[in-house]
Amino acid sequence: MRITKKVEDSLTEQHYLICPAHINSYGRLFGGQLLKWIDELAGIVAIRHCGTLVTTASIDNLQFKAPAYSGDLIMLRGFITGVGKTSVEVRVDTFLELPENRHIMINQAYINLVSIDKSGTPLEVPLLAIETEEQKKELSASLLRREIRNKLRSEQNLS
Amino acid sequence: MRITKKVEDSLTEQHYLICPAHINSYGRLFGGQLLKWIDELAGIVAIRHCGTLVTTASIDNLQFKAPAYSGDLIMLRGFITGVGKTSVEVRVDTFLELPENRHIMINQAYINLVSIDKSGTPLEVPLLAIETEEQKKELSASLLRREIRNKLRSEQNLS
Amino acid sequence: MRITKKVEDSLTEQHYLICPAHINSYGRLFGGQLLKWIDELAGIVAIRHCGTLVTTASIDNLQFKAPAYSGDLIMLRGFITGVGKTSVEVRVDTFLELPENRHIMINQAYINLVSIDKSGTPLEVPLLAIETEEQKKELSASLLRREIRNKLRSEQNLS
Amino acid sequence: MRITKKVEDSLTEQHYLICPAHINSYGRLFGGQLLKWIDELAGIVAIRHCGTLVTTASIDNLQFKAPAYSGDLIMLRGFITGVGKTSVEVRVDTFLELPENRHIMINQAYINLVSIDKSGTPLEVPLLAIETEEQKKELSASLLRREIRNKLRSEQNLS
Amino acid sequence: MRITKKVEDSLTEQHYLICPAHINSYGRLFGGQLLKWIDELAGIVAIRHCGTLVTTASIDNLQFKAPAYSGDLIMLRGFITGVGKTSVEVRVDTFLELPENRHIMINQAYINLVSIDKSGTPLEVPLLAIETEEQKKELSASLLRREIRNKLRSEQNLS
Amino acid sequence: MRITKKVEDSLTEQHYLICPAHINSYGRLFGGQLLKWIDELAGIVAIRHCGTLVTTASIDNLQFKAPAYSGDLIMLRGFITGVGKTSVEVRVDTFLELPENRHIMINQAYINLVSIDKSGTPLEVPLLAIETEEQKKELSASLLRREIRNKLRSEQNLS
Repeated sequence: MRITKKVEDSLTEQHYLICPAHINSYGRLFGGQLLKWIDELAGIVAIRHCGTLVTTASIDNLQFKAPAYSGDLIMLRGFITGVGKTSVEVRVDTFLELPENRHIMINQAYINLVSIDKSGTPLEVPLLAIETEEQKKELSASLLRREIRNKLRSEQNLS
Repeated sequence: MRITKKVEDSLTEQHYLICPAHINSYGRLFGGQLLKWIDELAGIVAIRHCGTLVTTASIDNLQFKAPAYSGDLIMLRGFITGVGKTSVEVRVDTFLELPENRHIMINQAYINLVSIDKSGTPLEVPLLAIETEEQKKELSASLLRREIRNKLRSEQNLS
Repeated sequence: MRITKKVEDSLTEQHYLICPAHINSYGRLFGGQLLKWIDELAGIVAIRHCGTLVTTASIDNLQFKAPAYSGDLIMLRGFITGVGKTSVEVRVDTFLELPENRHIMINQAYINLVSIDKSGTPLEVPLLAIETEEQKKELSASLLRREIRNKLRSEQNLS
Repeated sequence: MRITKKVEDSLTEQHYLICPAHINSYGRLFGGQLLKWIDELAGIVAIRHCGTLVTTASIDNLQFKAPAYSGDLIMLRGFITGVGKTSVEVRVDTFLELPENRHIMINQAYINLVSIDKSGTPLEVPLLAIETEEQKKELSASLLRREIRNKLRSEQNLS
Repeated sequence: MRITKKVEDSLTEQHYLICPAHINSYGRLFGGQLLKWIDELAGIVAIRHCGTLVTTASIDNLQFKAPAYSGDLIMLRGFITGVGKTSVEVRVDTFLELPENRHIMINQAYINLVSIDKSGTPLEVPLLAIETEEQKKELSASLLRREIRNKLRSEQNLS
Repeated sequence: MRITKKVEDSLTEQHYLICPAHINSYGRLFGGQLLKWIDELAGIVAIRHCGTLVTTASIDNLQFKAPAYSGDLIMLRGFITGVGKTSVEVRVDTFLELPENRHIMINQAYINLVSIDKSGTPLEVPLLAIETEEQKKELSASLLRREIRNKLRSEQNLS
């Protein structure tokens, strides 16, 4: 029988202080650097939910909403929004963190990851307990994204 | 009057040899590392088309299709698929490169970038000459993705 | 009047997945890599408490208790244990994280940081609310470490 | 019979030019970056003394005395100050290097490392020839630090 | 019978956007960073020609002609200029890329690489088809460099 | 009047422990990584001789003589071999370091650097005191390399 886990069991937050090694020539955080941090956090959330190795399968709807600059403190929060048979969807929100723990969202991303063993074979993942209205809404949005993704893939003749 | 540029004017290829610094503990290329390379290439394609600074705005439909391992040679190819008033869409295909220049696609991504000046103000971008059937198809798929993206954003109450 | 903050206001956790880029030739996490992560986390905790720039002043009693290897998931937890007029002491515990959120401590460190402005001048830091027995114990140990540190410095003729 | 080595046999100096990749958003060398360099140098000194693999065990009394900035040339000097049965203590001094080989100390650290084989089993280390007054003083300070460290550990209920 | 390949079969171009992580304290691209990129590209060109592992054997006549700064887009172009029994010579030109695909050369390098198997044993490399006047000129310059290199080595008593 | 400095005044040694972050997929130290270390050391030697900013101008006769592997300890030694009006030539030898301070040379390089001010204008460099037979031999080889370099440049129509 598949075990069931809660969203909080794998919810993970990560802070980074932006410094010159992360910025482009005019002082803004590189998109590619943030993508790397988002993917790393999504992987950690998925590992904590699945208890196995995982591999990134796709990204949907990643949006940069505001820039960040050298010296800014940013906070990424990742959590499971839906599970399939062998995959999970992780939402990663990135915030600029201001004094008094105020936060301004600068990026939002949905990432799909597959649970695998060492040979790369997909493994069944734990079910997700849906407990709040917010979580229900995330789950139904997750199903919509999956439908659109499949439709777009067939339009683009992608396997 | 806006100038017009061709797809080939900014089409850019990049090769990377995967080594231990790029892999996870079981030998596979990190998704986050590839995302960083994809974003960097999309930025270079957009800079070459626009002739200005650019910033990544969003990613649609990024899909990992096959893994890559330490020792593999990979090739990324990026090119413009559509332009808006101040933004461009760049498609980046990533291939495993085998001897005799054979290629196996391992990732496909569509990235939107905005042309900006130093203060972050959006700038008008050059038009794109659509010359082949392939380019027409890309352009119409690009418009479909834009429509879906806007619809998803309103569903998610994202500004 | 100095404001007072709680330990939880700045307590920060950070997760890292250890990969080949972080290990030495026989597969163990580099001490120096972990020190970098510990110092970065201590800096973030201090910034969140002080709301200013900070700079590391000293490390006391940093102890490696067990090794970590490529593929391990580790979790660092940092929190304020005591404050002076212009400085804070941050404790950073590093754990190996096992499935079901079990944790094995692999490193414990006490780091002192000074709150500064852009010119490097020390600034007064917020007071720390001591609310639990555990926090009282940390505070008194913090004072003991300070006393020993001062004694050792005078023995070593360090200014 | 254990062989005996001199301090000079493993004394090692290392120079680094500080550049934007090493600094924070207001131009100062990151503490974490310097800690990484100090630990790497301590490891090299211990390897040269022991002729085996080594692993960092603890840090005592690491003190930042002055900042360094982008463009500065710094010099680290590491040398053995005392040996136990399977461990060595390394002192690492970090200096700002000015023209005419003048040096200003910016950091002083004492690091304990253990000699190990590939399976992690501790190995006996060579003895240290104590030849000068300076070396005698270092050795007795080393014993004092060990005593304090053990006392602190028992106070903190650390194994 | 040795197969023959054309210069175009392995000619490779690579673009990089220079950012703070690549520059020294006064804003110029580090020579060492460019050397790393040049060597990586030479390796990729040699792998594409040889279809085997390769290792760098020597560098001749590498010249920096002009500096590059943070924010510059640079383009490296590498191609085979001559082949020996088990080695190839690769020329790597580095250009500053200006709008409208104008290029200013900032570095020129000739690098010799050896084709090897996993144990390090040299392997015979494909022949090079010489088809243009430019290629003939490169080949004869390549032979001259080899002669001078051998002469210098014997003068310096290097094996 | 130009001041005169000795070779020992700027002779610099640097040690590195090779780890997975520095190697290619079959365990060997990357040529490009060693080139980066060699250039950094040459820059430090030149800064210590000139007391100014410097920039790399060219590399002559860089030869890889033997490979290095993950876990190896290597030592680079750099020193001035000759000076021009505004430039210096630095020789950097790289050795594998074995127990008992035995060394095996794995790379030898000659690098030319120019002393510059912040605007990039060349500055006169201190003279070099030639005191030993070895130093005389290096100086005359240095002049030979310069002659050959100039001849090759004119053959290649390089400015």
